[in-house]
Amino acid sequence: MSKKPLILVTNDDGITAPGIRALISVMNELGDVVVVAPDSPQSAMGHAITINSTLYCDSIKIDDGPQIEYSCSGTPADCIKMGVNEILKRKPDICVSGINHGSNSSINVIYSGTMSAAIEASIEGIPAIGFSLLDYRWNADFESIKSFIKKITVEAMKQGIPKGNALNVNFPKLKEGDIKGIKICRQAKAHWIEKFDKRKSPQGKEYYWLTGEFINQDDGEDSDEWALKNGFISVVPIKFDMTDHSNIKELNNWEI
Amino acid sequence: MSKKPLILVTNDDGITAPGIRALISVMNELGDVVVVAPDSPQSAMGHAITINSTLYCDSIKIDDGPQIEYSCSGTPADCIKMGVNEILKRKPDICVSGINHGSNSSINVIYSGTMSAAIEASIEGIPAIGFSLLDYRWNADFESIKSFIKKITVEAMKQGIPKGNALNVNFPKLKEGDIKGIKICRQAKAHWIEKFDKRKSPQGKEYYWLTGEFINQDDGEDSDEWALKNGFISVVPIKFDMTDHSNIKELNNWEI
Repeated sequence: MSKKPLILVTNDDGITAPGIRALISVMNELGDVVVVAPDSPQSAMGHAITINSTLYCDSIKIDDGPQIEYSCSGTPADCIKMGVNEILKRKPDICVSGINHGSNSSINVIYSGTMSAAIEASIEGIPAIGFSLLDYRWNADFESIKSFIKKITVEAMKQGIPKGNALNVNFPKLKEGDIKGIKICRQAKAHWIEKFDKRKSPQGKEYYWLTGEFINQDDGEDSDEWALKNGFISVVPIKFDMTDHSNIKELNNWEI
Repeated sequence: MSKKPLILVTNDDGITAPGIRALISVMNELGDVVVVAPDSPQSAMGHAITINSTLYCDSIKIDDGPQIEYSCSGTPADCIKMGVNEILKRKPDICVSGINHGSNSSINVIYSGTMSAAIEASIEGIPAIGFSLLDYRWNADFESIKSFIKKITVEAMKQGIPKGNALNVNFPKLKEGDIKGIKICRQAKAHWIEKFDKRKSPQGKEYYWLTGEFINQDDGEDSDEWALKNGFISVVPIKFDMTDHSNIKELNNWEI
């Protein structure tokens, strides 16, 4: 039996996306790789799971790499559940998700399929990292960030990720030499102002496209938005305990 | 113009579910009610939003109540975005989601469509509450909990919900007189152990149903699981800042 680390890889852009192919090529240098990834794009799926319909999961061969791959009809969170509980014979040493085509910094973490997979792995007790590049294009330059992904993953396997956390790693859209370094950050206070683009179908029925403008209300130099804007890679520890412990006392004064 | 509070109502079980019809009937006693809810069940959709396909949102009349209603093809989070940014002329005073048919306590908050709607409203700066009853049945007894829902909503409108929080309210499956009271809690440490039920389609293709067993590893008497098990209604303040601030220092020691 191999003594190499067992690495579970997924994403939300689908198993054929250049971002996950780049991530797989880095992980092949670090361990035995099993890919369980969506058969189609699952962006902005948040932490959705499939409980009211069936799931397919098929063995697939996409390139000549040594990795084992499965294409799954479910969401990113489904892929982790399937990988850990149905496909793998033992718990993986680490789970990596991405590389996402586009940002998952600040509030985007909550909508992100990439991060939902990493968070699901952390719920299962597996060290997990989500990687995202601030470039939405299909042909984004993932080569420039491969060395950083390797470095962060190696360090995570050495140090262990704090229990109950997944790391949210975002890369600025810069060439390798222009990246200033890596910063541990907090999630910036930011939100989207939605605009609904209202249209009419050829049949005369009104429909909408959801669009929006990203608003960063946060000028703190310890936020992920600040780091990315200033040429750094941002690393945010994300937890799945969503309780706001600081407000329990205040709520205890309510007359209910 | 009415001086009554403006209340936005949604859910994840779909606009015709008995849970949301009960919630609407309570809210009609408290203010002007606008419902924007999914046209079909959206359970376990997490914080999914619809960015890669179109959305429909149609005015609909379901019963004789005074509320205004829209049926939307999107997720619960989409419904909030649509309600706040496209349908309502002013910001609602409060947003309520539910009543969910089934629990959203502990780790279920992260998979919950009901709570994603409440969290989305809190991101938009609107006080928000998600209500769930620990009874999955379509004909669950929502009458027993109406008085508590009214009390909690009235107090939330009076006190204001702490900024950046949404309340996750779960009701035990008990008759009104058997409920022991309301407890402010933290999210219990719990998780699901998944089991995939593997089957063969009539065409011979393998497929899966996701099932699982809920494991509560937490015996703290301040957790929502404890409260519900002991006959109390649980109220957990939930925040959308997912940063684990307590681990930033440790990560700063990494050699990256």
